[in-house]
Amino acid sequence: MRWTQAHIPTLREEPVEAEIASHKLMLRAGLIRKLSAGVYSYLPLGQRVLLKVIAIIRQEMNRAGAQEVLLPALQPAELWKRSGRHELMGQEMIRIRDRHGKEMVLGPTHEEVITALVAGELRSYRQLPVNLYQIQTKFRDEPRPRFGVIRSSEFIMKDAYSFDRDTTGLDTSYQTMYEAYRTIFARCGLGAIPVEAETGFMGGSDSHEFMVPAAHGEDAIVRCPCGYAASQERAAVKASGDPCPKCRKPLTLEPAIEVGHIFKLGTKYTQVLGATFLDEDGAQKPLIMGCYGIGVTRIIPTVIEGHHDAAGIQWPSEIAPYQVDIAPLNVQHAPSREAAEQLYAALTQQGVETILDDRDERAGVKLKDADLIGFPLRVVISEKTLAKSEIEVKVRATGQTSFLPLASAPTQLPSLLPA
Amino acid sequence: MRWTQAHIPTLREEPVEAEIASHKLMLRAGLIRKLSAGVYSYLPLGQRVLLKVIAIIRQEMNRAGAQEVLLPALQPAELWKRSGRHELMGQEMIRIRDRHGKEMVLGPTHEEVITALVAGELRSYRQLPVNLYQIQTKFRDEPRPRFGVIRSSEFIMKDAYSFDRDTTGLDTSYQTMYEAYRTIFARCGLGAIPVEAETGFMGGSDSHEFMVPAAHGEDAIVRCPCGYAASQERAAVKASGDPCPKCRKPLTLEPAIEVGHIFKLGTKYTQVLGATFLDEDGAQKPLIMGCYGIGVTRIIPTVIEGHHDAAGIQWPSEIAPYQVDIAPLNVQHAPSREAAEQLYAALTQQGVETILDDRDERAGVKLKDADLIGFPLRVVISEKTLAKSEIEVKVRATGQTSFLPLASAPTQLPSLLPA
Repeated sequence: MRWTQAHIPTLREEPVEAEIASHKLMLRAGLIRKLSAGVYSYLPLGQRVLLKVIAIIRQEMNRAGAQEVLLPALQPAELWKRSGRHELMGQEMIRIRDRHGKEMVLGPTHEEVITALVAGELRSYRQLPVNLYQIQTKFRDEPRPRFGVIRSSEFIMKDAYSFDRDTTGLDTSYQTMYEAYRTIFARCGLGAIPVEAETGFMGGSDSHEFMVPAAHGEDAIVRCPCGYAASQERAAVKASGDPCPKCRKPLTLEPAIEVGHIFKLGTKYTQVLGATFLDEDGAQKPLIMGCYGIGVTRIIPTVIEGHHDAAGIQWPSEIAPYQVDIAPLNVQHAPSREAAEQLYAALTQQGVETILDDRDERAGVKLKDADLIGFPLRVVISEKTLAKSEIEVKVRATGQTSFLPLASAPTQLPSLLPA
Repeated sequence: MRWTQAHIPTLREEPVEAEIASHKLMLRAGLIRKLSAGVYSYLPLGQRVLLKVIAIIRQEMNRAGAQEVLLPALQPAELWKRSGRHELMGQEMIRIRDRHGKEMVLGPTHEEVITALVAGELRSYRQLPVNLYQIQTKFRDEPRPRFGVIRSSEFIMKDAYSFDRDTTGLDTSYQTMYEAYRTIFARCGLGAIPVEAETGFMGGSDSHEFMVPAAHGEDAIVRCPCGYAASQERAAVKASGDPCPKCRKPLTLEPAIEVGHIFKLGTKYTQVLGATFLDEDGAQKPLIMGCYGIGVTRIIPTVIEGHHDAAGIQWPSEIAPYQVDIAPLNVQHAPSREAAEQLYAALTQQGVETILDDRDERAGVKLKDADLIGFPLRVVISEKTLAKSEIEVKVRATGQTSFLPLASAPTQLPSLLPA
């Protein structure tokens, strides 16, 4: 992509509405814009990152044997009345009446819909296990939308639902998702910690949250040297130093924004919605269910919280909007412009996602924007570097600068990309 | 994918709720299920087709220089009041009040949001032209939802918005989209005809609809040998034989469901929402806008209307859920099972999307399901074919059957895939 043909409205000023680094940087780097309280638009660079996160999730979910579906946001209120959650969800669930007077809701989650979908279609133990997932937009009327897309009223979730014939099967499905989650978060550059958690309004027995330690975190995790790790709510402790429920040693407590949550739901939904199957022994039994959520849009600011410095974002390569930024410092200087164009063509041809900063701007503007947006590699081409037939490469994450011969740059550059 | 691990609930019976072939076949082939009037879930095979259609659209939009964004479904009603469409949209627009009493709507389209987004960010003629698009879920409270996902209350649209400095620029942006649309529909296997159309509630000057002739179509197109082609509404004619507005020869009138619509909006939205830019001459001017929609989910049934026979769907290869179905007729027969497994592994390794029908089912069930779902190539492996060291290949679209040597099948099969 050529910068002059891209819509990248970076901001010099700190946005006053933003409290935390990721929110400030997502606005300043031109990734998102606010439309209304808790409601955001993704600009081209933000959408590129989002598509990369989605691609990782899709790949790992498919690899884990889950199958992708797409369920509606519009849901009949009647399903929620049957599960008993219509009242329970309170004001958080957005409710509407259609033109014929039918009560509908905007899905804050999809346990009811998926259970109604499989009821009568997963009829035999021979069809099990099945794990269906979607990457889809959810709606929750947040009382206090905050921190940009970390806590918003419209957001993208990956939600998966497993159906098994017995609890042993559920344990296996749950473990498979647990492992897939570790891979997904690792590939996104997140050090997410799985901790025991409360099941809340989902219901069910066991549950794990995947938490990322963060100073602004509104949740908290407790950890003990004995290996115990849980949400603060689950551990029911007040402060660091309180005794571990397992070994009585003093625990540590630290703030942490949840990015994933998995639940063993058992038969809570399948029983009330009549999702039963014929087992090998001839008995009709309710399906044993698990559900597995990832806050897809929330991953982006969470990554930024852990990958930035005073100058801007430091993207992990796999989810960077572009991997390489080529900045000819003076596009009026024909040899700089030509060398930049040649390198751009060579990298693009190799499949390295590259942006060419072909703007007729001052060098300072270009370098600041590159640091702010945080492309993993920044290439500078100038009269000075060309005098030595070189380019200058900066690794954004480390700040390390090196020089490569112009001729071998296209082949050498990709190997400098950090993980 | 192995069939035994896939969730493909095909139906033997004709669904009584469905009136037209595509709706019946989407239900019977296990592509979609109805959740509520005009609201559908996509099952794994339906979602695979949807992702392929989306990939084609994304590729062609990017190739045409458009940049992808993602705008919210939740929109402040205030924006619609400013454009004057808050009342105009009537009951079709779903309206809600959030917990703080703020009036919001669920976006039936995004002219207001995109214009508000670029207002103040596209400040100079040097930033133009810009074309921003999204592939996103829209909501319209349909008075008479019909024909499955052809006319539903929740659906996916690709909507693009171009911003230019003058009408010459708009003409170029419009023409670029016009060409991209032709390519997109052709790749999806649709013979879409661009016709002159009314602008309706969008406003603006020129507009073209992309129509696909279809017996159940609720719209109609008129065509004249002189080259004139328009929607019935635009041509303002009553019946075939009425005179052409251009040359007065008799027109033909035929039913056709719209899959795309492009508009030259001019300054209708940019003026009221204050989206102005500084032109080269130093004057502040409203951006000149175009908008370009594709009914993404509607493409699927439209393709099926033109690609099916009595036995089921006949997918064009590029959007088929899988390109090849391998059916060992008797999985109890070890050599059939092994030959099928080997071919499956070889095709998968080549990147040919293949489904292995490893079900322990009667041959009739397997062959009927393959025809119903409509994989472009169906491979039969049986004791009979193996006796000659062969496989049987049927091209679904033509019904043509041939035999290939087992040994060279992995290399020869892909060349049989129809366009």
